[in-house]
Amino acid sequence: MIFMAQRPLDVLNRALESSVLVGLKGGRELRGKLNGFDVHVNLVLEGAEDIQGGEAAKRYGTMVIRGDSVVFISPAE
Amino acid sequence: MIFMAQRPLDVLNRALESSVLVGLKGGRELRGKLNGFDVHVNLVLEGAEDIQGGEAAKRYGTMVIRGDSVVFISPAE
Amino acid sequence: MIFMAQRPLDVLNRALESSVLVGLKGGRELRGKLNGFDVHVNLVLEGAEDIQGGEAAKRYGTMVIRGDSVVFISPAE
Amino acid sequence: MIFMAQRPLDVLNRALESSVLVGLKGGRELRGKLNGFDVHVNLVLEGAEDIQGGEAAKRYGTMVIRGDSVVFISPAE
Amino acid sequence: MIFMAQRPLDVLNRALESSVLVGLKGGRELRGKLNGFDVHVNLVLEGAEDIQGGEAAKRYGTMVIRGDSVVFISPAE
Amino acid sequence: MIFMAQRPLDVLNRALESSVLVGLKGGRELRGKLNGFDVHVNLVLEGAEDIQGGEAAKRYGTMVIRGDSVVFISPAE
Amino acid sequence: MIFMAQRPLDVLNRALESSVLVGLKGGRELRGKLNGFDVHVNLVLEGAEDIQGGEAAKRYGTMVIRGDSVVFISPAE
Repeated sequence: MIFMAQRPLDVLNRALESSVLVGLKGGRELRGKLNGFDVHVNLVLEGAEDIQGGEAAKRYGTMVIRGDSVVFISPAE
Repeated sequence: MIFMAQRPLDVLNRALESSVLVGLKGGRELRGKLNGFDVHVNLVLEGAEDIQGGEAAKRYGTMVIRGDSVVFISPAE
Repeated sequence: MIFMAQRPLDVLNRALESSVLVGLKGGRELRGKLNGFDVHVNLVLEGAEDIQGGEAAKRYGTMVIRGDSVVFISPAE
Repeated sequence: MIFMAQRPLDVLNRALESSVLVGLKGGRELRGKLNGFDVHVNLVLEGAEDIQGGEAAKRYGTMVIRGDSVVFISPAE
Repeated sequence: MIFMAQRPLDVLNRALESSVLVGLKGGRELRGKLNGFDVHVNLVLEGAEDIQGGEAAKRYGTMVIRGDSVVFISPAE
Repeated sequence: MIFMAQRPLDVLNRALESSVLVGLKGGRELRGKLNGFDVHVNLVLEGAEDIQGGEAAKRYGTMVIRGDSVVFISPAE
Repeated sequence: MIFMAQRPLDVLNRALESSVLVGLKGGRELRGKLNGFDVHVNLVLEGAEDIQGGEAAKRYGTMVIRGDSVVFISPAE
């Protein structure tokens, strides 16, 4: 039924090893290198940083994020 | 039992490669080209923009949105 | 066990192609023609409008609404 | 293991065609005749009214309510 | 693996036909006689009353409560 | 894959018949003797007390807590 | 389809017996030694402490955290 479309998990797969912006429930945004994910959209970010007003406000290093808290993932361009 | 009705995922399928407005939980609205989706209503938007008061307030590029956060999808007409 | 009762999805089925009022989580109400739905109560509305104080405050055209956000559907009488 | 107990869905079944008060998440209460329900506790109310301070504040006619939004159902006595 | 422990549903079973205090999400508390329940912890209360400051503030009669809204059930001692 | 690790339910099992502090969604904390639990982390507390500022603010006796409302369980040391 | 990626649960497995920072829904952060976890991302922390403004504000000892409340886990570096 569906063709010529990008599947959401394929987009994440192509973003592996690249910088992504991750939006969480409640409005928080994190940036880091996407090192892995699974079908629940649980994510592994490396060099994760809290982004506030476009600036890195806090550094976390490696971070496992539960998919349940994720609103969006946007690969850097 | 049901006939002469449009199935929700068929409407999304017809909207592929077109501009859609996406409403998220909490009231946020995004606009972008619908490049893909899956049965969980996870979406791929290209050229995604935050819409506030009808204006693009922030640009995100490609964006994978988790279906769990989606309230509605409205294809541009 | 249950008899002489209307099943919720049957009521939606009879409302197809008619105007319905849809209540969403958070209190928002939309009106439009019910063009389709599925077992998750995902809905397709045509000519969807935001209703505030009984008035149409914003027009959306066709709208796919995720069942997870729906509180009630009330067919116009 | 359980005996001499009323099952929740049996209580709803006996309330069919009678007036019920329905409490929703967020505190809203609706009154109407229970015309049907299913195992997800999706409900069909006829002559549904918003109840505020014991008074009918708004009339909706027939209403399909998603079980996910329901806190309680109390049959009129 | 587990022994010498009380299973949560066994405790509810022993509380049948006795008065229980039920805590709901959002902080509301109800008191009534537990007339039934099922594995989803959907409850049937008879003579249900809203409890505020230790006093009965509102009477509901029979009430079916969806387990999804229940935080705790405490049998009277 | 995983070894030399404590499984969460094993920790609960060892805490049976001991005092535990239970954190609920919304920030409320309860203390009581853990008399039982199941795989959904539904809990049975005996002598449950609301803890506010380190003090017992309200006594509940036996309490069945739905796992869905539980944030953490911390055995007394 | 996916390769050269770290799976989220593998990252947790490597963090066993090390200090982790755990972010919970609502913004609370806890620090402790990760002693165990399961596929639901239920966690066992040893020496768990509430972290506020980078300081330990409250000590809990051993703590079982339900995965449903977890937003992220960040191993100390």
